[in-house]
Amino acid sequence: MALEVVLGIDIGGTFTKIGLVDRSGEIHFEDEVPTTGYDTIEQYIEAIHQHVTDCLNQLEASFHMAGIGVGAPNGNYYTGCIENATNLAWKGTVEFVKLMENQFQIPTVVTNDANAAALGEMLFGGAKDLNNFLMITLGTGLGSGLVVNGDVIYGNDGHAGELGHIRASDNGRQCGCGKRGCLETYVSATGIKRTVFELLAEENVESDFRKIPFSKLKPKLITAMAESGDPIAIKAFERTGFLLGRSLADTVAHISPSKIFLFGGLAKAGKWIIDPAKKSMEAHLLPIYRNKIDIVPSALLKKNIAVLGAAALIWKKLDREDIAG
Amino acid sequence: MALEVVLGIDIGGTFTKIGLVDRSGEIHFEDEVPTTGYDTIEQYIEAIHQHVTDCLNQLEASFHMAGIGVGAPNGNYYTGCIENATNLAWKGTVEFVKLMENQFQIPTVVTNDANAAALGEMLFGGAKDLNNFLMITLGTGLGSGLVVNGDVIYGNDGHAGELGHIRASDNGRQCGCGKRGCLETYVSATGIKRTVFELLAEENVESDFRKIPFSKLKPKLITAMAESGDPIAIKAFERTGFLLGRSLADTVAHISPSKIFLFGGLAKAGKWIIDPAKKSMEAHLLPIYRNKIDIVPSALLKKNIAVLGAAALIWKKLDREDIAG
Repeated sequence: MALEVVLGIDIGGTFTKIGLVDRSGEIHFEDEVPTTGYDTIEQYIEAIHQHVTDCLNQLEASFHMAGIGVGAPNGNYYTGCIENATNLAWKGTVEFVKLMENQFQIPTVVTNDANAAALGEMLFGGAKDLNNFLMITLGTGLGSGLVVNGDVIYGNDGHAGELGHIRASDNGRQCGCGKRGCLETYVSATGIKRTVFELLAEENVESDFRKIPFSKLKPKLITAMAESGDPIAIKAFERTGFLLGRSLADTVAHISPSKIFLFGGLAKAGKWIIDPAKKSMEAHLLPIYRNKIDIVPSALLKKNIAVLGAAALIWKKLDREDIAG
Repeated sequence: MALEVVLGIDIGGTFTKIGLVDRSGEIHFEDEVPTTGYDTIEQYIEAIHQHVTDCLNQLEASFHMAGIGVGAPNGNYYTGCIENATNLAWKGTVEFVKLMENQFQIPTVVTNDANAAALGEMLFGGAKDLNNFLMITLGTGLGSGLVVNGDVIYGNDGHAGELGHIRASDNGRQCGCGKRGCLETYVSATGIKRTVFELLAEENVESDFRKIPFSKLKPKLITAMAESGDPIAIKAFERTGFLLGRSLADTVAHISPSKIFLFGGLAKAGKWIIDPAKKSMEAHLLPIYRNKIDIVPSALLKKNIAVLGAAALIWKKLDREDIAG
């Protein structure tokens, strides 16, 4: 008998990751296809379809593909569209779910990547028994998925949970969104790079960072430099964690989660970012919330959470429809 | 046949308002009893019980009381307790629901006053068809009720929605909670008073406010002075609205509501507070949220929203239990 799986798809600017995921979160097959280089979006979707079909034919085991979940920048759960995603080639609003369902003829759901990550954590990671938690993804920017009463919240228009653009600092750094002081200008791979250079300007201390141009600095190096005791790297993490924790305290005052998960490249820095974030969050929390909310790395940090999250999205929908009858 | 009603109770520091409310939101009887002056909380509850019983006996119509909803400072929906309410005489944690059910022998639910106001708006006011909205109550402090997917959210511990204590300003005014810069130190009856005095210090302009000591200034007077063209009053509203709007933009980035309702004394100032708040919120919103979220006064501004909200709380619970079987 064929094993029931879903197709999880994570659309990034350069590559689209795909995986066949069963109900327990096991990935039976994963691969990637380029996101760019197609004349039309239909050709891109055809390429995914061809790739998945070829792979299914080559695999020894027999699979039944029940649905498709997609995590994409600016993916809107309600409309099934990808809306004005700045790092994708398709402009304006793309009716992605409609195009996918035409091609694959199975139920498809889309959401943004951070919401997908929250769902992945809930179904397959460290949030299996949690009804109220927060997922923060630290990549080039800062994404967030808010889980309330056991559901990712989408709000009135599908756009709830854009914590990358809450005010981290009055009259702060310029953000790509047109505003100033947004959280992701401080707390993200790009944000901590900016902080390293801010510190190089402020301080006189010796640091190997003085030999590296802005355009070449990778966040991974900042962690390595902190490990080796570089004072600028350590201070950059402290400043980043301080601002993250201060903003998290405000998010707690909104939804009162039981736990906060961090995912993404910067989350791999572990204690360097988590310790100052915790300290700052506690200092900025109302007394009623203190000493009960943990900040932890995602349990899926070493796995393909984006594909697992996209798979979780469609599993959740399929299970609901089962219950509804 | 007896008309089915619930008892709505709003516990304030000085008076406890009570009302018999039917399913349509009509108040058939309302009154108040003192909150203070009892040796024990049991005596206070007995006094309410006696008062309600007497009234029911005197009323001509026949009522069947199906349940009791209570809005109270620090009322916890999950535990049924009133927890460390600073402006009530009872210290520590009071098992309010248990005590009420012992006395009245009917189902009782408690929540905080702002959550009750949100429920009142949803069942009987301007939010009847809204699944995602925000209620801000502007009294001595700032309270909030967040409605997501058609439910007031309580979070992990019953304490979700404490927007009075999000950071309105870096290193700002001292707050009663022990932190600095909390939204309610700027946006509340007390907050705008502080702003009037801040402006009197900053500016040289003539103003009748110079004749009034801090302890005597009532927020109502600030509205009256704005109406009569006093420059300090107008500027105080502008500054208050600016900070309210800026913080609301961050709340929108959390839950993406379709509408924001204002309730309480300061909400009665209408355009004086709403116009600058709208302008500031729009300026601080991410583009995807702009020009679609309205800030409006509660539709129940002239009614007893606190009692209606408490009644809505228990109606919602009774209706759910009906559905559940």
